[in-house]
Amino acid sequence: MKLVTYRANTEAAGRLGFLHDDLIIDMEDFGDIFGMPLPSTMLDFIDMGPIAIRAVNQLLEKADLSTIATCSIPFSNALLLAPIPRPRKNIFGIGLNYTEHVAESARALDTANELPQKCVIFSKPPTTVIGNGDPIKHNSDVTQQMDWEGELAVIIGKRASRIDSANALDHVFGYTIINDISARDCRRSGQWIVSKGQDTFAPMGPMIITADELTDPHNLSIITKVNGVEKQNGNTKYMLFNVNAILADISESICLEPGDIIATGTPAGVGAGREPQEFMFPGDVVEITIPPIGTLRNPIVKA
Amino acid sequence: MKLVTYRANTEAAGRLGFLHDDLIIDMEDFGDIFGMPLPSTMLDFIDMGPIAIRAVNQLLEKADLSTIATCSIPFSNALLLAPIPRPRKNIFGIGLNYTEHVAESARALDTANELPQKCVIFSKPPTTVIGNGDPIKHNSDVTQQMDWEGELAVIIGKRASRIDSANALDHVFGYTIINDISARDCRRSGQWIVSKGQDTFAPMGPMIITADELTDPHNLSIITKVNGVEKQNGNTKYMLFNVNAILADISESICLEPGDIIATGTPAGVGAGREPQEFMFPGDVVEITIPPIGTLRNPIVKA
Repeated sequence: MKLVTYRANTEAAGRLGFLHDDLIIDMEDFGDIFGMPLPSTMLDFIDMGPIAIRAVNQLLEKADLSTIATCSIPFSNALLLAPIPRPRKNIFGIGLNYTEHVAESARALDTANELPQKCVIFSKPPTTVIGNGDPIKHNSDVTQQMDWEGELAVIIGKRASRIDSANALDHVFGYTIINDISARDCRRSGQWIVSKGQDTFAPMGPMIITADELTDPHNLSIITKVNGVEKQNGNTKYMLFNVNAILADISESICLEPGDIIATGTPAGVGAGREPQEFMFPGDVVEITIPPIGTLRNPIVKA
Repeated sequence: MKLVTYRANTEAAGRLGFLHDDLIIDMEDFGDIFGMPLPSTMLDFIDMGPIAIRAVNQLLEKADLSTIATCSIPFSNALLLAPIPRPRKNIFGIGLNYTEHVAESARALDTANELPQKCVIFSKPPTTVIGNGDPIKHNSDVTQQMDWEGELAVIIGKRASRIDSANALDHVFGYTIINDISARDCRRSGQWIVSKGQDTFAPMGPMIITADELTDPHNLSIITKVNGVEKQNGNTKYMLFNVNAILADISESICLEPGDIIATGTPAGVGAGREPQEFMFPGDVVEITIPPIGTLRNPIVKA
């Protein structure tokens, strides 16, 4: 299932929908037709657990076209918000999770050249989240080194501590794309939250693909382009700590909860690692593609 | 006003109350008596803005003892939860914010000896929060170096970006105590979230004192004791970045919102900085006193 948070027009509130052919079906309205209470927000849907996905798929087999017409709009008419517009806690980010990115970071920034022995974890506040098409705000009082980081993001489906690596994927609700925007000149005594936590620094979307449809998160290409020029072309199969390892590692000491978001790290090709270095400024457009999730595209504007 | 989140017995849900003599008056029930809708949670009360505090104080002048008796319980009978049991985002923490703590950290840990030029910021997930008396969980698979950090915590009252340092305190709802528990052996490539973000690692309370009653946060003593023995004895007047500076600094790039919590850093005397080093293990009890806020006391137990 491909899930979105959408609005039918700029006045409307964000609502949960799912893709069907070239339509977005409104989740709550769809449920109403069949007398099944279904929620209007992504987090409420995640809280229902995997049974909700199966129930919706079963109803969809019964639904005819005229029924669907009463609770859907064309995908091309919808405005997409971030799939989870307001997370319930900071996004977990994983740093230095691809070998060649560790090397370029050590060369260009102040990180170690050795591969990390455990996941390097930081966070991005909920105020970083924006949707597909929303502007990333460049605050020139604070940074002249705004960089891109295309990443696969994992959405947690079940509350869990001490997850066993072998069955870790059972705890995943689905996957989306995050651009882990990083102001390289805002690191402070090694801590990254100001670098990565500024308002609008977590473009997310365009949709969540659920884990029953994307069963293998470890063979996905990640392509980042700036102004149409390819800058990153990696694949999740090269993660140092794969999704299983990340979930086991975090949950060893930090309880994971439904709706938690983990950005799993970026492959090589960030602006800071290039020679000469390249950064983004107002007027630039950055886009990240992870087939089958889609493309997340955002312009940079003056804050 | 001194605000608590309390429950009347172990079966009850947490509710917002305020102290009056030796009583806790239930906020929602108190409002009902006067036909004024008042909320049952701290975050909802903070969202109402400073007018809510003034309104409650005015009603209290009119209330007689028999009225108060119908909506209060003795303080000694109440169980206190953390004042904000479930924050809406990670707690912001400030590191290395007292001169002598910078020195002891440089000596014992891997931090720089120079004073930071800007606030060093990290975060603690909402799952770290526990209340006065709740157990801090010691996970011996993960750490043998659990340390204490007694800190003044600031609760934000107003949404704001680019706060002016001069009037920054206008954005404060109130103050409480946080024990910024830190597993010194869980730092990873410089990032502190696993060190400071483990479940139960943010004891908070016992209450919030509102900013209209605590007008000067820069002359408060902070005393930490472990098993009754004094370990830290500092004063907020020695902060490198005071509350005004912290609010101005964070909000320059990260929007602050009502209910946000900022732990402002710990004075000298942490276990890692002592010779020989001292850490906490199951059976220990740690308590932090900041005089007009009270004492926050928590036992360490096996996870």
